[in-house]
Amino acid sequence: MTTPPPLILAALYAVLITIGAAVLMLPVSHRVPISWSDAIFTSTSAVTVTGLVVIDTGADLTLFGQMVVAFLIQMGGLGLMTFAVLILGALGLPVGITGRIYLREDLHQASVHQLTKLVGTILKVVLVCEVAGAMLLSLTFIPRFGFWQGVWEAVFHSISAFNNAGFSTFPEGLIPFATDPIVNTVIPALFIVGGIGYIVLHDIFTQKGWRAWSLHTKIMLTGTAILIPWSVAMFAILEWNNPGTLGQFDSKLARLTVSWFQGVTTRTAGFNTTDIAALHDSTSMMFISLMLIGGGPTSTAGGIKVTTFIVMIIATIAFFRRQQQLNAFGRSIGLDQVLKVMALTAISVILVFLAIFLLTASHDGHFLDVSFEVASAFGTVGLSRGYTAELSGFGRAVIIAIMFLGRVGPLTLGFFLATRAVPRVRYPAGRVFLG
Amino acid sequence: MTTPPPLILAALYAVLITIGAAVLMLPVSHRVPISWSDAIFTSTSAVTVTGLVVIDTGADLTLFGQMVVAFLIQMGGLGLMTFAVLILGALGLPVGITGRIYLREDLHQASVHQLTKLVGTILKVVLVCEVAGAMLLSLTFIPRFGFWQGVWEAVFHSISAFNNAGFSTFPEGLIPFATDPIVNTVIPALFIVGGIGYIVLHDIFTQKGWRAWSLHTKIMLTGTAILIPWSVAMFAILEWNNPGTLGQFDSKLARLTVSWFQGVTTRTAGFNTTDIAALHDSTSMMFISLMLIGGGPTSTAGGIKVTTFIVMIIATIAFFRRQQQLNAFGRSIGLDQVLKVMALTAISVILVFLAIFLLTASHDGHFLDVSFEVASAFGTVGLSRGYTAELSGFGRAVIIAIMFLGRVGPLTLGFFLATRAVPRVRYPAGRVFLG
Ligand SMILES: [K+]
Ligand SMILES: [K+]
Repeated sequence: MTTPPPLILAALYAVLITIGAAVLMLPVSHRVPISWSDAIFTSTSAVTVTGLVVIDTGADLTLFGQMVVAFLIQMGGLGLMTFAVLILGALGLPVGITGRIYLREDLHQASVHQLTKLVGTILKVVLVCEVAGAMLLSLTFIPRFGFWQGVWEAVFHSISAFNNAGFSTFPEGLIPFATDPIVNTVIPALFIVGGIGYIVLHDIFTQKGWRAWSLHTKIMLTGTAILIPWSVAMFAILEWNNPGTLGQFDSKLARLTVSWFQGVTTRTAGFNTTDIAALHDSTSMMFISLMLIGGGPTSTAGGIKVTTFIVMIIATIAFFRRQQQLNAFGRSIGLDQVLKVMALTAISVILVFLAIFLLTASHDGHFLDVSFEVASAFGTVGLSRGYTAELSGFGRAVIIAIMFLGRVGPLTLGFFLATRAVPRVRYPAGRVFLG
Repeated sequence: MTTPPPLILAALYAVLITIGAAVLMLPVSHRVPISWSDAIFTSTSAVTVTGLVVIDTGADLTLFGQMVVAFLIQMGGLGLMTFAVLILGALGLPVGITGRIYLREDLHQASVHQLTKLVGTILKVVLVCEVAGAMLLSLTFIPRFGFWQGVWEAVFHSISAFNNAGFSTFPEGLIPFATDPIVNTVIPALFIVGGIGYIVLHDIFTQKGWRAWSLHTKIMLTGTAILIPWSVAMFAILEWNNPGTLGQFDSKLARLTVSWFQGVTTRTAGFNTTDIAALHDSTSMMFISLMLIGGGPTSTAGGIKVTTFIVMIIATIAFFRRQQQLNAFGRSIGLDQVLKVMALTAISVILVFLAIFLLTASHDGHFLDVSFEVASAFGTVGLSRGYTAELSGFGRAVIIAIMFLGRVGPLTLGFFLATRAVPRVRYPAGRVFLG
């Protein structure tokens, strides 16, 4: 086996995007004429569960077209290899070790033998969550849109939320539901469960409690428990009197509801119940940092991931405390993990800088909007300050590339760029001053 | 000895800044009334060799005030401890081991016994370069300003250039000399020698050739040899037809001259022969990345430093090549160095994000200008798109803090924040997924 699994997976994603775009180009998919650029952008945004849009999903696409988008979201969110195993299994074909290794790379999972079990857990969780989510959302959508359309909107938004896609069929997104209690509980519940990562869910569903959980699960849960209150509180503080966002609501409860929703949705889900273009620059800056951090590995999230961020912080603290070893929750973290964190951070920073540079070089836009757009694509978030509509053909290509790399993981890029080194002689140690 | 040397050095820098501000407040220093905020900002900018200005150095300060600024630049650039050793030596006092250790931290130098020799080299190089620089600059400045003023302008700009301070006494900076051959060779020569770091200079002056040089010197020279042509070429390509910058010159030679000057000055020197506010957004973005990288350790440069950047790239490549060891120029780089690179990068990213956030939260400005200003302060560069003049009192405090941390090294911050850990039990290894 010479081709590394990450490359094969990236290729499979690319194929899915291409097929998706082709189907969206069929006359049966759209109500108004769309270009190939529109179709490829939409398909990439769906498969990478980003949610940046250049066409109006509800108005420009037919019901069939919307179903295609929902299908692409589901395929992209679950991970192609999970599906591949299921399809092979359903056809009665043996799932060989090769297939399992591909799956492993897709889920970033450590031990091969747990995988079949893991896939079972994934499917059960997805089905239960999405069905429950759709039923609960129907309570709001059916009275508003009638039975059949209400059911479809509920199903679409349940799929979109669980997979952290952020797609909405409504022209204004979820802004009309800014204070709706069902939307503000069901949709966040779906995307938090979907975005925390299958490994964490698996731990929670199969292990007894905190002490038995893996280090990964503990770090993810702690990181999430810190980041959610932080983003909700910061959003409320910064936007409380902004007439474009929270200021338009008189009641404190409404302002807190919108803060809650917008605070939790920003790291990767990408729904919005407020006007993102009206945010203060400071809030936008905070959002950029949250979008770059993203959600959990083996989830539907993009970004550098919460675990990477936490390990980076732990390593930094350990350095200043002159510790020889990194520890967290009674486990040590190897220096090779730190090397991975560094590689990941370095390549992410370079990617984001390069993308902003290319966009500004091709078309001078408002710098904050451009930076926001790139962070949103990299974190597969889907929030936009309106720059998506201004993108040139070249600009769309840049954002498509960033969404793709944000989803398959920036590390995959490295496998394209580098080849495995032959073991070499050990060199004597040198010292570099890093001040 | 309980207080870590970096803290004592930071305290000494703070004292120098305070004394400098107090002297600038004396009526003999200024021609127009200045506030304490102006004086502290100017003093910090001079001691940290940044060059961001809130007052007109040439017009608002008297000759005495300008001499104070030049003195602060020289003190800040050389490093206080170098001076302390010299003063103690001149007084005939023994330079004890404690003094040498402070010096060591200031110069980030490895072996204590080489230090006295190193200080000798530093002083010789500084004196030779600044005298030669002033004499050559006189050839341009004396015909223009008359003998005495010409000599003073030459001395001031020679000190400012060698120490990478970027201060100028001319209201438009060096823009009137955009195509002057002497300014375009002497000033870059001064700041390149001053910004490459004393360790490199020491190696070059005392060792025979490439093979005998230290790993540090090889990395610095290679990094500089890559970054200079890159920045010059990119500036020329991006700005060639911009009517606000290169486009105003008809001759290709003039455009290339300005590209040369602006390309080399950006990482840390901070002089400008063109209007920075007129740069394209893309060029500004490239400048931000260069300013964050900065110059060499043990030099007058700020930023994360060229070596940190190069080791980060080497570590990233090594990770993708699945190398167990980092190698460069036949020497291995320890994983503890990688840990330092990560700590440095993490704390720098957090600092820069936080500063931009605080500035935008206190006063909505053009986001690009704000980001540019923070990167410029962090890299102690001193280029500005005009935001310095718009800073509120709080904004000035933020920029002062960033200039200070950019100069004493962001790692110093860590020593304030953390205490040394007691050695602890070894924990079993845990695994975290970082995808
Ligand atoms: K999303
Ligand atoms: K400077």
